[in-house]
Amino acid sequence: MSSAKPVDLTHHLSQEARQRKPNAMKALWRLTKRKPDMISLGTGDPHFSLYPMKQVSFEVASAAEDIEDPVATWTQAGPSAPTQTFMASRDEPRSVALRTAMAYSTGAGLPEAQRAVTDLTNFYHSPPDHVCTLTIGNMDGVTKCFRLLGSPGDHFLADEFSFGALTNAPLAHGINWVPVKIDKGGLIPSDLEHVLSSWDEEVHGRRPHVLYSVPSGQNPTGCTLSLERRKQIYALAQRFDLVIIEDDPYYFLQYDLEETSSNPLMPSFLSMDTDGRVMRVDSFSKVMMPGMRLGWITSSQYFHEHLVSLNDNSTQHPHGFGQIFITEMLSEFGWGLDGFDRWTRSLRKQYQRRRDVFLEHFYREVASTGLASTEPPEAGMFVWTEVHIDRHPRFRTDVRDAGRTTPRTNTPELMDELFERCLDAGLVVMPASVFAAPASEGALKLLGDENSVQDRVNFLRTTFAGEESQMQPALKILGTVLKEFFNESK
Amino acid sequence: MSSAKPVDLTHHLSQEARQRKPNAMKALWRLTKRKPDMISLGTGDPHFSLYPMKQVSFEVASAAEDIEDPVATWTQAGPSAPTQTFMASRDEPRSVALRTAMAYSTGAGLPEAQRAVTDLTNFYHSPPDHVCTLTIGNMDGVTKCFRLLGSPGDHFLADEFSFGALTNAPLAHGINWVPVKIDKGGLIPSDLEHVLSSWDEEVHGRRPHVLYSVPSGQNPTGCTLSLERRKQIYALAQRFDLVIIEDDPYYFLQYDLEETSSNPLMPSFLSMDTDGRVMRVDSFSKVMMPGMRLGWITSSQYFHEHLVSLNDNSTQHPHGFGQIFITEMLSEFGWGLDGFDRWTRSLRKQYQRRRDVFLEHFYREVASTGLASTEPPEAGMFVWTEVHIDRHPRFRTDVRDAGRTTPRTNTPELMDELFERCLDAGLVVMPASVFAAPASEGALKLLGDENSVQDRVNFLRTTFAGEESQMQPALKILGTVLKEFFNESK
Repeated sequence: MSSAKPVDLTHHLSQEARQRKPNAMKALWRLTKRKPDMISLGTGDPHFSLYPMKQVSFEVASAAEDIEDPVATWTQAGPSAPTQTFMASRDEPRSVALRTAMAYSTGAGLPEAQRAVTDLTNFYHSPPDHVCTLTIGNMDGVTKCFRLLGSPGDHFLADEFSFGALTNAPLAHGINWVPVKIDKGGLIPSDLEHVLSSWDEEVHGRRPHVLYSVPSGQNPTGCTLSLERRKQIYALAQRFDLVIIEDDPYYFLQYDLEETSSNPLMPSFLSMDTDGRVMRVDSFSKVMMPGMRLGWITSSQYFHEHLVSLNDNSTQHPHGFGQIFITEMLSEFGWGLDGFDRWTRSLRKQYQRRRDVFLEHFYREVASTGLASTEPPEAGMFVWTEVHIDRHPRFRTDVRDAGRTTPRTNTPELMDELFERCLDAGLVVMPASVFAAPASEGALKLLGDENSVQDRVNFLRTTFAGEESQMQPALKILGTVLKEFFNESK
Repeated sequence: MSSAKPVDLTHHLSQEARQRKPNAMKALWRLTKRKPDMISLGTGDPHFSLYPMKQVSFEVASAAEDIEDPVATWTQAGPSAPTQTFMASRDEPRSVALRTAMAYSTGAGLPEAQRAVTDLTNFYHSPPDHVCTLTIGNMDGVTKCFRLLGSPGDHFLADEFSFGALTNAPLAHGINWVPVKIDKGGLIPSDLEHVLSSWDEEVHGRRPHVLYSVPSGQNPTGCTLSLERRKQIYALAQRFDLVIIEDDPYYFLQYDLEETSSNPLMPSFLSMDTDGRVMRVDSFSKVMMPGMRLGWITSSQYFHEHLVSLNDNSTQHPHGFGQIFITEMLSEFGWGLDGFDRWTRSLRKQYQRRRDVFLEHFYREVASTGLASTEPPEAGMFVWTEVHIDRHPRFRTDVRDAGRTTPRTNTPELMDELFERCLDAGLVVMPASVFAAPASEGALKLLGDENSVQDRVNFLRTTFAGEESQMQPALKILGTVLKEFFNESK
């Protein structure tokens, strides 16, 4: 807590966030605490005695201390696998009261649920001086950060290959993207510096003031930023006054770790955020279930207050069911933080094993062709497969001379063909082209034709999160299709 | 279905909604259905076998046919009240599969949950040609309609006294409000017509194209629009090309009905919407529990598609827990639609009884002073108490002559004093002033000083939804405070 230096970040707020007015009723509610034992005819809440619910309960996998590898036990023991129950009851005290969880609350969520994710965040990140705000899941969290920070015409920075659903979302409210080059280690700090230092506000408009980053197991590339790069990027954020939206759903799925230490996971941007310029978005989707739709943002108190106000003016607080689930899960009645840590360690083991099975098939079926290769991902669910498209007999460079400016090569056309051939052979893979961040006109001008991302779309996103039994047949198809595609027109 | 005439409503979309681009990945997913039995390495979903959940269950009040008055039984029988269980299980088939409900789905929500609310909507409203979109609760639903329809600078119409949290929300994105006068029957059609026909686009900008209306038991006034007014307002919407956002959380809480008919409730705007210009927002908060945070919007197919796209780009689909709850509730495994109807009829009886108890105390403790009166509300939870402020010894008219333009009376000051005196006496009531819809400058100019809502803030919102035992003491305080306030300065 003591290491935080207050930095003025007020100018990062969007027009919309600045224009948001406090609700007059909220101010009034504060007055109504004038005396103890006030009688109220003021609320509009249905009386809890009319809630038709006695109990909500979730029967979940046990993460008790005596189970060495809870995920393996859960997936292998079938119906007899040991379980625990998280619940809230009308008649029995637990970590949160049913009548409180099912009533209206404020945009910040239930104090009990906030405390649960705050304890979790403190354990893993020890942020210098930050506050948690509950969200309705990861997408809600990230897009709320976009609304909070982005005014029409603003430019945001992102990895040149990013998750399309997220880079797509703020286009509608006038945000422009400036893609930054990546390599196998993720976003390249010197490229970020180049963009920022060569930005001319007279020509390109307001300099980008937000970096959207997925630091671990990035979707789609699977890249994880090294600690060194994280430090460099944070220093650039300080130098060029950026807010970093740290979207880290794969944080708990990092591999090849020394699992002995109390927290073997890579330090987050949040953990080094002395300025309060990081808004970290966390999710339970990848370690629990996506349908839970409950996550949280950790930010400075200042951004927290504006996030709560945005919640109050849009979605309101998260659903009571999910708040009960996570509060119970992280409490002494549920797994506790210890149990959660055991579950996620065990889950890492599971995914790491899946990754290794996948890679084994990959090397045998695909890499052996010499036509594609990959780097083993250090986190997440994705294997970013590079297709050596320059070995294709119809590969062409300098197609620009044929009357076009960008791209310079016919990589996009060849990769489209390859994708079609995979589909024809019964295999679904995701082509890199759908992940190319939608660069604004200004960004394209700044980055120059020589750097068109279209010349670097020779990748496929594949995953080891799906059916294990399908990995080998799927990769066999990919290898076969590659061989046929590269040979056919020789 | 046959009565629908297609009307072009595309020009009602906001700039933001028009600018929203389809996500490239979505288009690709369609391609991947090319053959049956495709193998996929394309998804990014965690495998369902790793969801740590075996079962979710909700133990709820029974609404079985043999229970004559399920709400009374539930509130009076204590722990021995009969219950039913809604659930989803990993191992047992029910109305929706746990693994489906807890996975990612699309912005439209689970087909099973959509079907459940569609059946419910068809039963109560028989809309001509409409589609349901799930929401994360009522506030999410209404504010999404605002985002979908409102561009910066647009004017929307609302009752001059409206729920502040909702009229406040779109101010941040540049929506202006034009308040329309109300009387004890709610919004006055001739006043709506006056505003629209005297609107000069040269002077005031684009004519209001959206009416935000709470037709039953409006918050804060408790007013319910008569069928006659609903028809008049819908005809005005057709004549002046309005979209009506019908926000109807108190629909199921209408009183003094002939409960014998299959649906005794007042016909909604939706039920008469041959043009597709109604977006109806429904909520379970008032009939189930507010913390459920799951509702739905019923609209034309055209608006539905844009709502789904907005969901996909913000909150995504609702949480699985709530979708399980409502799907089970409305299915043969739960209450079914019959049971839901029994529950809401019984709930109406309960609230009507509470209303009558409240009014009895009101007449004895408050109305008897001759200083305040009310109209019994036909729906909802609120009693809008008119304070006869013109009988106060310090009441002044034409304060405008004292150098002010608006309001003409000192009603606001006197009502503030009364509110403070209530607080001092230990009573919380909500003063009308906090509900005055925030009129834009243009609206103020159009409506004129003579019509300042500030001269009509001599109302208090009180509720009969709270603790029943506190009604009498609360109203006794109100009566006493009124008498003292009106007498003190004689």
